[in-house]
Amino acid sequence: MTQATYDVLGVGNAIVDILAQADEAFLDKHGMAKGGMTLVDEDQAHAIYAAMGAGVEASGGSAGNTIAGVASFGGKAAFIGRVKDDEFGKIFAHDLRSLGVAFDTPAAKDGPATARCLVLVTSDAQRTMNTHLGACVELTEEDIDPALVAAAQITYLEGYLFDPPRAKEAFRKAARLAREAGRKVALTLSDSFCVHRYHDEFLELISDHVDILFANEAEIEALYPGASLAEAAAQLAAQVEIAAITRSEKGSLLLRGSERAEVAAQPIAKLVDTTGAGDLYAAGVLFGLTRGKELAECGRLGSIAAAEVISHYGARPEVSLAGLV
Amino acid sequence: MTQATYDVLGVGNAIVDILAQADEAFLDKHGMAKGGMTLVDEDQAHAIYAAMGAGVEASGGSAGNTIAGVASFGGKAAFIGRVKDDEFGKIFAHDLRSLGVAFDTPAAKDGPATARCLVLVTSDAQRTMNTHLGACVELTEEDIDPALVAAAQITYLEGYLFDPPRAKEAFRKAARLAREAGRKVALTLSDSFCVHRYHDEFLELISDHVDILFANEAEIEALYPGASLAEAAAQLAAQVEIAAITRSEKGSLLLRGSERAEVAAQPIAKLVDTTGAGDLYAAGVLFGLTRGKELAECGRLGSIAAAEVISHYGARPEVSLAGLV
Repeated sequence: MTQATYDVLGVGNAIVDILAQADEAFLDKHGMAKGGMTLVDEDQAHAIYAAMGAGVEASGGSAGNTIAGVASFGGKAAFIGRVKDDEFGKIFAHDLRSLGVAFDTPAAKDGPATARCLVLVTSDAQRTMNTHLGACVELTEEDIDPALVAAAQITYLEGYLFDPPRAKEAFRKAARLAREAGRKVALTLSDSFCVHRYHDEFLELISDHVDILFANEAEIEALYPGASLAEAAAQLAAQVEIAAITRSEKGSLLLRGSERAEVAAQPIAKLVDTTGAGDLYAAGVLFGLTRGKELAECGRLGSIAAAEVISHYGARPEVSLAGLV
Repeated sequence: MTQATYDVLGVGNAIVDILAQADEAFLDKHGMAKGGMTLVDEDQAHAIYAAMGAGVEASGGSAGNTIAGVASFGGKAAFIGRVKDDEFGKIFAHDLRSLGVAFDTPAAKDGPATARCLVLVTSDAQRTMNTHLGACVELTEEDIDPALVAAAQITYLEGYLFDPPRAKEAFRKAARLAREAGRKVALTLSDSFCVHRYHDEFLELISDHVDILFANEAEIEALYPGASLAEAAAQLAAQVEIAAITRSEKGSLLLRGSERAEVAAQPIAKLVDTTGAGDLYAAGVLFGLTRGKELAECGRLGSIAAAEVISHYGARPEVSLAGLV
């Protein structure tokens, strides 16, 4: 196997976030499941935007955030995802490329606009997301370049890719190619509602194709209903090489076979917005793994990155993570 | 004179900010005057954007920020400014309207894109701005609705409006109409480079049309070269009804005839980004004046608003200013 050109290749929905504060009554009125990600169509997105408060726009997307984090740590990273050739698409591409990320998926010339996620942040810093997938539905198998997958130590896939039907095929192709090339496949379950939507497929995928799995407690619970955390962790550890389970302020648990690392959350001055916490945690762990770090150190890097991103609005680091470490 | 429908009407360049961190070397390489606002054409804007780091987008514009602040304090506000009917234009309009601001200037259907300001934030939290005026050049006298000006207690004008030639005429018309309607005219000098560009016109304007003037020390120095702060303050106090001079961490000085209020800056936990500091100070002072507050209390409201906005990225408050007070 040749030396990898990239540490991590991310494949995900290419999204620009619009973040605004909201109160619980707003979530209730619009029937939003707090803490979750709901898919909305264009009309719903317009209606929610018209009703929500003044916002801030920032590149997002789960795997996109993780890849930005890997690059901010100093890792060599690439990304595959579909934007349209519009203002938001230019922003998304700029924000990755400016970090040195290779991002060459061609922007769609027509069709739906670049995806946007309307993120409502409540006073408890929890984020509730409404995603209009827009141009993401145009991502297909054709966009998965075998040479690029083979050139990355780890191919990182977001569960959310199962939502746009053709992107799911792109996802499967990327996972298969990475395995064939002798590389690692990492997956984030993304969201408990997403796990419910694709429960059986996710279970199968995990046992057949995934080396490194990221999940939070709600996602684990959705995957193995009724199992205790210890039981679910044991099941996961038997199926993947490395499992990283995030537990919000309780830190995280990393498992590799019989090896086990419990990592504390990093203290923060002020919790502002949890958007991107899991994505940035994954960035730290993945970067650590590509550098051959011990599990506990990988978890610590994840905690540092997550702590940075929840201290301000938006899902990407405001400061160099390499500088923080 | 009838009861005013609005507390403050702002007239200004309608701009979306793209904020990113940069180091001093970046400013030097691109020949940027640190702390200033430089006008750039479309090609320059593209070149700077391509070179700058990952950003965050947020509605801006000096008077736009002030008006957002007035609304956040609970004031009734309106805004006149020109966007294009594009993604950034929709963002700018949404962010004002979601605060209850009346913003009815029609978006341009064609011509240049909505204005953007590329804001480079250095590690000392200073901001250096590069503005592509875009659709702002389409603001004309026609956009100044006499009934709207007459309906506002205070018409607030930004000095930056002198840059787009036809907007300058709109500025003059708004000032004239406000005076004719027996209302107050407020002006911010905006930027010391802007004062240099329009020095004589600004001096004339101040003596003939301005009731309330906002300026920082650099702008005062540009207006009255060689004068001490005390001398300049005395000159201003003789020409306008109220002068508010901001002095960064040294607080501010408010003058009304022989009355004088020195106001301390509000302590902040962490200085992140000074973008919008002066704009939000003006919001607090203007809101206080419309509520008949004492000068010192007006200054205190200004300091609270400025402190909020410099504690995070972006030029508009993240929390309700009414809630803070």
